Amino acid sequence: MYELGVVHRNIERPDSEVVARLGSFGVATIHEAMGRVGLLEPYMRPVFVGAHVAGPAVTVLMQPGDNWMLHVVAEQLHPGDVVVAAVTADCTDGYFGELLATSFKARGARGLVIDAGVRDVRALTEMPFPVWSKAISAKGTVKATLGSVNVPVVCAGALVHPGDVVVADDDGVVIVPAPLVHKAMEAAAAREASEGEKRAKLAAGVLGLDMYGMREPLEKAGLKYID
Amino acid sequence: MYELGVVHRNIERPDSEVVARLGSFGVATIHEAMGRVGLLEPYMRPVFVGAHVAGPAVTVLMQPGDNWMLHVVAEQLHPGDVVVAAVTADCTDGYFGELLATSFKARGARGLVIDAGVRDVRALTEMPFPVWSKAISAKGTVKATLGSVNVPVVCAGALVHPGDVVVADDDGVVIVPAPLVHKAMEAAAAREASEGEKRAKLAAGVLGLDMYGMREPLEKAGLKYID
Amino acid sequence: MYELGVVHRNIERPDSEVVARLGSFGVATIHEAMGRVGLLEPYMRPVFVGAHVAGPAVTVLMQPGDNWMLHVVAEQLHPGDVVVAAVTADCTDGYFGELLATSFKARGARGLVIDAGVRDVRALTEMPFPVWSKAISAKGTVKATLGSVNVPVVCAGALVHPGDVVVADDDGVVIVPAPLVHKAMEAAAAREASEGEKRAKLAAGVLGLDMYGMREPLEKAGLKYID
Amino acid sequence: MYELGVVHRNIERPDSEVVARLGSFGVATIHEAMGRVGLLEPYMRPVFVGAHVAGPAVTVLMQPGDNWMLHVVAEQLHPGDVVVAAVTADCTDGYFGELLATSFKARGARGLVIDAGVRDVRALTEMPFPVWSKAISAKGTVKATLGSVNVPVVCAGALVHPGDVVVADDDGVVIVPAPLVHKAMEAAAAREASEGEKRAKLAAGVLGLDMYGMREPLEKAGLKYID
Amino acid sequence: MYELGVVHRNIERPDSEVVARLGSFGVATIHEAMGRVGLLEPYMRPVFVGAHVAGPAVTVLMQPGDNWMLHVVAEQLHPGDVVVAAVTADCTDGYFGELLATSFKARGARGLVIDAGVRDVRALTEMPFPVWSKAISAKGTVKATLGSVNVPVVCAGALVHPGDVVVADDDGVVIVPAPLVHKAMEAAAAREASEGEKRAKLAAGVLGLDMYGMREPLEKAGLKYID
Amino acid sequence: MYELGVVHRNIERPDSEVVARLGSFGVATIHEAMGRVGLLEPYMRPVFVGAHVAGPAVTVLMQPGDNWMLHVVAEQLHPGDVVVAAVTADCTDGYFGELLATSFKARGARGLVIDAGVRDVRALTEMPFPVWSKAISAKGTVKATLGSVNVPVVCAGALVHPGDVVVADDDGVVIVPAPLVHKAMEAAAAREASEGEKRAKLAAGVLGLDMYGMREPLEKAGLKYID
Repeated sequence: MYELGVVHRNIERPDSEVVARLGSFGVATIHEAMGRVGLLEPYMRPVFVGAHVAGPAVTVLMQPGDNWMLHVVAEQLHPGDVVVAAVTADCTDGYFGELLATSFKARGARGLVIDAGVRDVRALTEMPFPVWSKAISAKGTVKATLGSVNVPVVCAGALVHPGDVVVADDDGVVIVPAPLVHKAMEAAAAREASEGEKRAKLAAGVLGLDMYGMREPLEKAGLKYID
Repeated sequence: MYELGVVHRNIERPDSEVVARLGSFGVATIHEAMGRVGLLEPYMRPVFVGAHVAGPAVTVLMQPGDNWMLHVVAEQLHPGDVVVAAVTADCTDGYFGELLATSFKARGARGLVIDAGVRDVRALTEMPFPVWSKAISAKGTVKATLGSVNVPVVCAGALVHPGDVVVADDDGVVIVPAPLVHKAMEAAAAREASEGEKRAKLAAGVLGLDMYGMREPLEKAGLKYID
Repeated sequence: MYELGVVHRNIERPDSEVVARLGSFGVATIHEAMGRVGLLEPYMRPVFVGAHVAGPAVTVLMQPGDNWMLHVVAEQLHPGDVVVAAVTADCTDGYFGELLATSFKARGARGLVIDAGVRDVRALTEMPFPVWSKAISAKGTVKATLGSVNVPVVCAGALVHPGDVVVADDDGVVIVPAPLVHKAMEAAAAREASEGEKRAKLAAGVLGLDMYGMREPLEKAGLKYID
Repeated sequence: MYELGVVHRNIERPDSEVVARLGSFGVATIHEAMGRVGLLEPYMRPVFVGAHVAGPAVTVLMQPGDNWMLHVVAEQLHPGDVVVAAVTADCTDGYFGELLATSFKARGARGLVIDAGVRDVRALTEMPFPVWSKAISAKGTVKATLGSVNVPVVCAGALVHPGDVVVADDDGVVIVPAPLVHKAMEAAAAREASEGEKRAKLAAGVLGLDMYGMREPLEKAGLKYID
Repeated sequence: MYELGVVHRNIERPDSEVVARLGSFGVATIHEAMGRVGLLEPYMRPVFVGAHVAGPAVTVLMQPGDNWMLHVVAEQLHPGDVVVAAVTADCTDGYFGELLATSFKARGARGLVIDAGVRDVRALTEMPFPVWSKAISAKGTVKATLGSVNVPVVCAGALVHPGDVVVADDDGVVIVPAPLVHKAMEAAAAREASEGEKRAKLAAGVLGLDMYGMREPLEKAGLKYID
Repeated sequence: MYELGVVHRNIERPDSEVVARLGSFGVATIHEAMGRVGLLEPYMRPVFVGAHVAGPAVTVLMQPGDNWMLHVVAEQLHPGDVVVAAVTADCTDGYFGELLATSFKARGARGLVIDAGVRDVRALTEMPFPVWSKAISAKGTVKATLGSVNVPVVCAGALVHPGDVVVADDDGVVIVPAPLVHKAMEAAAAREASEGEKRAKLAAGVLGLDMYGMREPLEKAGLKYID
């Protein structure tokens, strides 16, 4: 959070099979499985719909209006990584566009999550290179002030350590801290298994009131039906 | 507005042919036909584009971060209903997703209008189950506090009584109070009839200045042309 | 900025080939080529994705909730024009919809940039008539108070003179002042030429760090790598 | 909500002693006493701190940027009234200032609650004439379009009928519907009585955990203490 | 608007008596006198209440997060000037605090209007050095990128030329373009003169309905009174 | 960040003299001394002006609309502590008011920093009990769901560990991580010492351009003066 001007070259990445398995679940499922935590703020929206990525977080911290460190982070990318970019103050400038996306993609990155603006929407969509951002803005940035790479960052309200697993889809972005990856994966799997069954029942017309046994607690809480 | 912990089981629904007829008009047309009133705030956006629904409002009032009453409301749904969900304070949490949509759809509901967040965007789009909401958020909710079903609610700035007609499309959401349904329907029909003719004239190059007879009032108001 | 109740009938429009040439570049490219200036605020978003227009600005200044002057401006349109509409106070009402779009299109206009709301999203998309706006809202407006046509306006944070070139795409909207049109066009061309080469290098795995010669300035600025 | 162009001259006002008694409680106390309902959105802020008013609501509905009806409502004011002003769309213009405040005060009004902007902050503070508003703005308005007086309105998210009791202080604004006035008054009194005792205990160092008997439900909910 | 890296040393300042006379009127009065134009957005708020300043605008354009040009502008200040600072993108960082205020004050500046954040609220209040800003933020800025001094800028939605007169009070900020200074002064004086008389009448209980002769136009517009 | 339902009873608090020394500096000074980091978002504003507190952070994490854990945290307070309260989703409800302030004060707490709403503004001001919050709202909360005490939290964009030093004044709130407390203290002292001298020079009319030696770098960057 507080180191500026530093690039950590070696970070521990989680096992790629575990990442793939986590990436098979939706963001909402993982968030629930972790006990309803880990989400980035809902203002983080995908640049185009339909993307769903998972990967180890490579983090970058930048100053407002300055995207210099995105070039620095490119060199640190391993195939499968997802870049998580935070800014030290509120900023909607377009930090990232087609050229950087080309570079990130060439390095094997799976996507970008950035608490700022991006541009070249059409090119990003066509490549495709999935991005979740706070804004779309053509505003360019300078390259004048240092930030850091692979330090812990707060991105859109969530703490992200390098090597945490990022999962992002149309519903938003969730961070699974590295030490909780296995637990989250199992809980998500359990949750999804039970959801299939529930979905079938609900589709058949069974009410959640009955399926979840809510009638008694609702009555106890004082709910009154009036004809 | 002020009853908590109450479910009204019997509400008066407008005639289904009238609802269908109202639903054949766009939201903007109905709003204009009613005298430019009845709209929800423009922050209410469709989860996917292209949906257009109309139905009697079944209302639900909830506390922030608590979606318990959505399960209660499911039981009260009749085929063709549109659920209008209000929250007692500003909240973007994801109150509604694939499972509840499956249940609502199984009960015959046509859509949901909710002054809060929803999730499972992809599933809602594929079903499809049309939703107009304030936010998209994977954030889960609890089931701990009572609200009410089928009481009058203020949803995104509009007063909604159970049994009012809700019409929603890509432009937003409009509420037609039950006592005004026939009048609104006729006025909308008249308006739409006249719009077809106007559209043809404008497409042919006729100016609104001439078609609406605006030149004189503009001159009277003092408009000056400078060459 | 300060003339109300005035319509300037004669404005100087830039050469149409120059406009076409500018319109072949993206908004971000032009903004960068001009020295990172000229953009409208990023809250200005296209009503549908994929549009890319360029044309001389025909400006209109209106009061909140009053779209009377949009009918006045229609008469002043030449084929290829882009209307830039500003409002004297913050307003999200739906100033513009299918009928006005039909009229503007019949007059040859290429698009609308409006610092307010618009409606009839589906019709605009189907026509198609490209619009960049601050909001989508079905809320109707009155026709009661004068504004002006073809005066300088501030639209979404940018100063626009009639006859300036407007370029708009999925990234936003940029204004090229008439006296800078040639310079901007050349600088954009130069920039785009160099981008093709850069893109190829980056796609081949070359790092921006090396391509832009950033390693030395980063080291000089104090960047430290930690293994 | 839906009548435009109408002034209801006769409204039923609650007993003035009851109003005075309600006005002796804070907004938060009344809101809690009613079951945590009735508040206007928290963006409604007092123009100057320290005001605390209560009175029957005289309501007014206006169009964006048009304050004509504030002159109409002045004539309908009885001593002790509080004006509640709603606008049919989001607007921050300065609808109200020193002159109207002078008029309202001369008619005996106790204050204004307006979901829009006001101006002449210094004069309002010096008079003093208490105002709760969404914004402070010097932007003037026109007098061109009708609204209504003493119809039900939605103001900052709350439904207000003419004759409901409005209470406003530094914490915000609460509406007590006329039929609930006595019940709210008694519940608020009971609540406040118990608060005095609680305050004394807490000031003496007693913990809410013990005073409210929370230790057992917290343990039951699974709270764990770690040394 | 589009020159970066330029300092115009010589600007034409309006006559100081005219400035003083304009400064004797409130912002709302001047805005109305000019035909309801010239205001900055209402998000521009005074750092402390009670300040009222007027002076020639000395303008400065800066990049987000970079306050370098505030040191450059200091040298260009004449006694009585008001600095108007714009930023090329949305930014809330604290560009200005006690040290720069000390410098500006030593050069005779009367105040600052800045479309960004400021800090050292307590010191600014104690000096006092009046500031109108978009935000209060302790966030520091860098000194790395050029902007300009005394070029036309768009500040909080208003076009400002160097030498225009800025008037600011608790209601906000208004810009009087240099060519309109005399006309605005006279119109404001006329308006204020008539306001005194109106205030007296309204205080005596005369209604605006009668004083402004509104009863007839309201009736003509269709207003209905219901007993 | 990710533990729910846990109360850590023992946290390491920094030396009280160090805290007092840090608290003698303003928030902006400390933020700059740390390398321009550590600030909470500028939307965090003091409930009343003039407060300036410093203390070890006792952290609390809560669910939206649920203030149960504020009673739990009260028991963990030591004299001099500052409570830092985070919520798992965006919420403006009034979590804290006079009763809890009385309890916190009785336990010796110096203040509260909360990324949500508070109420009882008048009582807080009179006590006085300093609070920095996102909103003022009378909206009450429930006591139904567990959160945690003394876990790391993200509050208004900043990571806070229990035992970090919180400093808050009229400019906002800064967090000094426990391991950096001494370094920050020394850097702040050095910075403040140099500021006194600078202030005197600037007050005497010396320009920052000369005092900071900016003329050469500005010229090198290409700044041009035009007469």
